[in-house]
Amino acid sequence: MPDIDLVVRDITQEMQQRTDRGQVATYIPELGRVDPNAFGLVVIGADGKVSAGGDSDTPFSIQSISKVFTLTLALGKIGDRLWQRVGREPSGSPFNSIVQLENERGKPRNPFINAGAIAVTDAILSGHQPREALGEIVRFMQFLAQDPSIKIDEDVAASEQRTGFRNIALANYMKSFGLIENPVDFTLGVYFHHCAIAMSCRQLATAAGFLAYLGRNPSTGLSVVQPERARRINALMLTCGHYDGSGEFAYRVGLPGKSGVGGGIIAIAPGKASIAVWSPGLDAAGNSHLGRIALEELSKRMGWSIFGV
Amino acid sequence: MPDIDLVVRDITQEMQQRTDRGQVATYIPELGRVDPNAFGLVVIGADGKVSAGGDSDTPFSIQSISKVFTLTLALGKIGDRLWQRVGREPSGSPFNSIVQLENERGKPRNPFINAGAIAVTDAILSGHQPREALGEIVRFMQFLAQDPSIKIDEDVAASEQRTGFRNIALANYMKSFGLIENPVDFTLGVYFHHCAIAMSCRQLATAAGFLAYLGRNPSTGLSVVQPERARRINALMLTCGHYDGSGEFAYRVGLPGKSGVGGGIIAIAPGKASIAVWSPGLDAAGNSHLGRIALEELSKRMGWSIFGV
Amino acid sequence: MPDIDLVVRDITQEMQQRTDRGQVATYIPELGRVDPNAFGLVVIGADGKVSAGGDSDTPFSIQSISKVFTLTLALGKIGDRLWQRVGREPSGSPFNSIVQLENERGKPRNPFINAGAIAVTDAILSGHQPREALGEIVRFMQFLAQDPSIKIDEDVAASEQRTGFRNIALANYMKSFGLIENPVDFTLGVYFHHCAIAMSCRQLATAAGFLAYLGRNPSTGLSVVQPERARRINALMLTCGHYDGSGEFAYRVGLPGKSGVGGGIIAIAPGKASIAVWSPGLDAAGNSHLGRIALEELSKRMGWSIFGV
Amino acid sequence: MPDIDLVVRDITQEMQQRTDRGQVATYIPELGRVDPNAFGLVVIGADGKVSAGGDSDTPFSIQSISKVFTLTLALGKIGDRLWQRVGREPSGSPFNSIVQLENERGKPRNPFINAGAIAVTDAILSGHQPREALGEIVRFMQFLAQDPSIKIDEDVAASEQRTGFRNIALANYMKSFGLIENPVDFTLGVYFHHCAIAMSCRQLATAAGFLAYLGRNPSTGLSVVQPERARRINALMLTCGHYDGSGEFAYRVGLPGKSGVGGGIIAIAPGKASIAVWSPGLDAAGNSHLGRIALEELSKRMGWSIFGV
Repeated sequence: MPDIDLVVRDITQEMQQRTDRGQVATYIPELGRVDPNAFGLVVIGADGKVSAGGDSDTPFSIQSISKVFTLTLALGKIGDRLWQRVGREPSGSPFNSIVQLENERGKPRNPFINAGAIAVTDAILSGHQPREALGEIVRFMQFLAQDPSIKIDEDVAASEQRTGFRNIALANYMKSFGLIENPVDFTLGVYFHHCAIAMSCRQLATAAGFLAYLGRNPSTGLSVVQPERARRINALMLTCGHYDGSGEFAYRVGLPGKSGVGGGIIAIAPGKASIAVWSPGLDAAGNSHLGRIALEELSKRMGWSIFGV
Repeated sequence: MPDIDLVVRDITQEMQQRTDRGQVATYIPELGRVDPNAFGLVVIGADGKVSAGGDSDTPFSIQSISKVFTLTLALGKIGDRLWQRVGREPSGSPFNSIVQLENERGKPRNPFINAGAIAVTDAILSGHQPREALGEIVRFMQFLAQDPSIKIDEDVAASEQRTGFRNIALANYMKSFGLIENPVDFTLGVYFHHCAIAMSCRQLATAAGFLAYLGRNPSTGLSVVQPERARRINALMLTCGHYDGSGEFAYRVGLPGKSGVGGGIIAIAPGKASIAVWSPGLDAAGNSHLGRIALEELSKRMGWSIFGV
Repeated sequence: MPDIDLVVRDITQEMQQRTDRGQVATYIPELGRVDPNAFGLVVIGADGKVSAGGDSDTPFSIQSISKVFTLTLALGKIGDRLWQRVGREPSGSPFNSIVQLENERGKPRNPFINAGAIAVTDAILSGHQPREALGEIVRFMQFLAQDPSIKIDEDVAASEQRTGFRNIALANYMKSFGLIENPVDFTLGVYFHHCAIAMSCRQLATAAGFLAYLGRNPSTGLSVVQPERARRINALMLTCGHYDGSGEFAYRVGLPGKSGVGGGIIAIAPGKASIAVWSPGLDAAGNSHLGRIALEELSKRMGWSIFGV
Repeated sequence: MPDIDLVVRDITQEMQQRTDRGQVATYIPELGRVDPNAFGLVVIGADGKVSAGGDSDTPFSIQSISKVFTLTLALGKIGDRLWQRVGREPSGSPFNSIVQLENERGKPRNPFINAGAIAVTDAILSGHQPREALGEIVRFMQFLAQDPSIKIDEDVAASEQRTGFRNIALANYMKSFGLIENPVDFTLGVYFHHCAIAMSCRQLATAAGFLAYLGRNPSTGLSVVQPERARRINALMLTCGHYDGSGEFAYRVGLPGKSGVGGGIIAIAPGKASIAVWSPGLDAAGNSHLGRIALEELSKRMGWSIFGV
């Protein structure tokens, strides 16, 4: 097996030198201001050892990556009852499609498309005030990463809330089927804010560690979920983690993962590593262009594909 | 690690005693005549060792399981050009949906839905006579399983051809977009026949061995595909192998697999085992009811989930 | 030609005696409180002569019937530019479908489905305050009916606004494509309120008179629109006036018309009569059950079908 | 009222001089060979008086116009039972969409989209041999037009049959739901052939006469259907006669009509005229470009819109 430090170093250098960097998201000005040349990569092994390259400590907007952690939190709170409100199948549609909701009476196909993540957020909120629910989510992230400095980028949250008409449509649509229990504004407020959490690759790879090691994070020593649940969240990431590019990601990278429009991706090599990568430029499907390529290289060089070793 | 022979024996006994056996497919009389109490399970390990339980040597109609092998054959013939004709994403639709085709100008989402498998068959046919193409497919199955006795159940093929209006619709629909190159009757003739191949669990587990071991089958000693290709076929099985139940299968079983309406399922534990199970009764999604449960138990007891060990 | 007074009297009596009355809408309590046995019918002829039967002066919630008048008002304000924002084709979908919007990038198919009527309302609002736009709409109704007593039922409006999640979804969805210019709350506020206007059959038949006589209302003497525009609004009512029951209404009644969930329907016999009918019970498609039957009888007995005389 | 002979002469001259002529259909070579400058217009009044302009006696491929006559024939044979097999609502989809069929379990929305017309043809066939059914249809056309010279263009029929993959898909799709009773090849054979009937504007306007005069054709003296049925066929033409351009045709022309891809359109001014127009170039929606404009002018100049006189 190659040395992981060398592999991380090599891949980081290769990615930093590439000129094909995709397009930075500009639908809100805060995301558009990010340096397109930024690149970070952090790999944390079974022994908690960290291999880091590039801008590994620069916080960025985690966006949809937060959906993995809110799913974990919601499952912790209400268990398998969550699946009455959201499905577990890939959607075959863009991340913000509303067609699927109409065809299935308002029930989102999985927790990683926007509608599904909003339903998960609604389950976390569960009658509390938005501020309390949001505090709980942020504290959960701080706990997972063992880093109390993690916080929400309020400018990003405010911009999302001001322009998120499609998400407002999705939430009201589900509400019309009785599938959102809280006031729509409350649920969406929490949703827009947890997508606006800012974290670095180091923080993300640490926080995701529990998924790589059957629920117990080797670098923090924390037991987060039962082994069964860790496996199942990984399964969901593999089949649904990249919207309508999930099949392609499985095919090329061969690892469960979840991307965000801020350019970050987390990926899990079960039993071997938790990984976070960041490059702000996106490909046509809305996933980090170089982030995906870096993970494909990492998986190949380390022999980490879950589909054959 | 538990003893695989004991686990196979225990699961076989448990499944044989269950009374919830699902519903045997009856859309053609040949399938409807199968004994609903039949159950077979075969696991072949890295050393080629076979663990078998129940009706492990009874041939049954492999139906859609054949799609894995025709995909392998087509990739061997025309390589990645195949992906110009069929996608790699889960469909979010039933196995025989035509809506997706209309939305994407006749290009099937993946090679494991009916439309995609018909397109793959068309690529294998490629100007030859149906008889030749079919001969090639059967010989490929005999080669993979190292068993010259494998053959097509002509009664099943004839029944499928007589009643397969939905598949005729799919093929003609793709043809209207120029995505079927051969006469539709030729392509469908080959398709209906390769779905009607009859094999036992032992033959199927043997034939699928190359997928578990990076392209090289330990029990036959044959190198079938490059490691990369084996991994990628596994990835496709995981994301798309069970139609609109693929997410559920990944979530519960945690192994790449492919089911057929004849009640068979093959599954791959990369580096550890190739598996075939058979129980004719189907669940609501059209997958073998006890077959899926048996695989869930096997994966759990052996710790074989690819999502965490 | 039969005597219209006698025909109206007979039909009214027949409808009052029928026991199949459909189901009163109950999605908001205000509608559910209406007397299910109410029935009104008013026909106004070319000479302004009024034939009235039953509860012809009882105000009811006009609901979607308002869409005909807001369309007229919007065309008066911005003319054919309106058609850049909304189409003119039947939708083949339920009145509140969002699927069609996704397929056509947020542009509603016609001004009589909810999404289209919201877009029309947005065009009327056009930068003004909701209160002003609403005042303009109410004054337009009062002008058309020459009756200053027409007003909004504020309880209905408040209930609609509190529970109209599907419409909120539609409006935000269009907004996400840039097709709603005003703040969504403004546009929806005006929309919910103009649907809550209360009018009697007499007032509605009077207000719709201009559509029956090439834009000039014989009973009020008012010229409202050019002949061409009156014809075109009638054409839109015929093809799109009853959501996914428009074909059925054309087939059975043979007159342009527009129904509302409050149980009212207006219909136009060009050159011969403007008609309003009201019976609160709805059929499965959401149109007044006895209202439609009454119109079918009226059209048949008077020989008013536009499809053959 | 203007003199119809002069109006027909003027419109014919105007259309002959226009240079925007649309695009002639070329999906089969036989249609592509038609002279793009051809133009014919025939109007037959209540007294049987014929006003003809241009190439009024040149036969052309009537294509989908045949659907009006096969609908009439099928209603004559099995009456309202036909509506168990095909609906009466506009489709909101292209003429050859299969999506609608999947959403409604194989039942076509109306008899004028391809799927619906195939279902109507199947009802006519009804266990007979294709040759007999086709003979019946041709004789019906000869009877309606009182012209025994009307016949099928066998070259067109053969080309349609050779390339009609989409229609083969539609028919097999319906068959899979049990909605086609005869062998698919039989039904499609009859369908492709009746679409290939060749008729002139004079023949078409004569044949359609019964629709303009409550079922009784003034020029032939033949009673074809009851008044009610004539009205209802007109209603269906208005709401569904131009596929996804039906709303636009109603809005602009204001007459029931049915177009064919050969460039012909029939239109009905109830009580006033039956009309046939022909110009081979099509607009983007597949309807005759100048044919539609000619009808719009004719309707306007004669004041024939059914939506206001």
